Amino acid sequence: MTDTSPPYLFAARQSVEQVELGNDFAPRFDAAGLLPAVVTNIEDNSILMLGYMNTEALELTLRTGHAHFWSRSREALWHKGEHSGFTQTVERILVDDDQDAIILVVRLDGPGSCHVGFRSCFYREIDLAALPASAPARLTRTEHECAFDAESVYDGLPNPTSL
Amino acid sequence: MTDTSPPYLFAARQSVEQVELGNDFAPRFDAAGLLPAVVTNIEDNSILMLGYMNTEALELTLRTGHAHFWSRSREALWHKGEHSGFTQTVERILVDDDQDAIILVVRLDGPGSCHVGFRSCFYREIDLAALPASAPARLTRTEHECAFDAESVYDGLPNPTSL
Repeated sequence: MTDTSPPYLFAARQSVEQVELGNDFAPRFDAAGLLPAVVTNIEDNSILMLGYMNTEALELTLRTGHAHFWSRSREALWHKGEHSGFTQTVERILVDDDQDAIILVVRLDGPGSCHVGFRSCFYREIDLAALPASAPARLTRTEHECAFDAESVYDGLPNPTSL
Repeated sequence: MTDTSPPYLFAARQSVEQVELGNDFAPRFDAAGLLPAVVTNIEDNSILMLGYMNTEALELTLRTGHAHFWSRSREALWHKGEHSGFTQTVERILVDDDQDAIILVVRLDGPGSCHVGFRSCFYREIDLAALPASAPARLTRTEHECAFDAESVYDGLPNPTSL
């Protein structure tokens, strides 16, 4: 079993200078104990998804090299790809100035990473040219074809989208 | 004065199908009333920052074409570039599957967008090759030179980084 007991792979936050200009990885988790992680595809530099990590998910990601998140809808640790097989191998992790957000640069082990079946979760864009006359704002598709059949890949699992 | 009174430029969330596959922009704000926005630079497709918007910031962004956020550290509406002059002109806005995250593709009106003085807030990365032997994890720089002199640009303003 992977050891995720403290001491963690990250440092305590001691000063603004340490956090902004130092070499310690000292992430800041929000009030809910979560850190947002933007996931990008190393092949084309596109953004695949935005996930959230708790300390355990971050530790597991660092120790295993595979993306882990905290599923806010299921309230459970989430090894990305555990059901679909479409895991994400972590190639790089970038950290922002105040260390409250990270970028995971991944190699996508499968055709996509979106539960609806698209390659990226960001498969639509706002029709800005039509605003404000078209209010409420309208969306257009940027991905026109699904990358895989989500119904068969996620057969029997609840949809994670909340209203 | 810009009108941000309801009805907003976005629609009510009515069904999972509408949210995931429909053409209505129906964003979901989190328990704190915020929506994360990943900001990318249209010139090189790099990620500049991760910000958060409340309904007013999102409305103003849609109506003015300039990025607005909610500053969690100052607890105030934040017109990006209001102090530095380095505004962000919004070229595209992408929306994710459950509409609880967006990407702003911007034209950066200035040399950078990070309060420390770098072009991107993500100017460091974790030295993954050294893990786990090097615990806690260490950071290396991916941007080596500041893009502007943050001390003079933000003269007299409090540092937004929280410990």
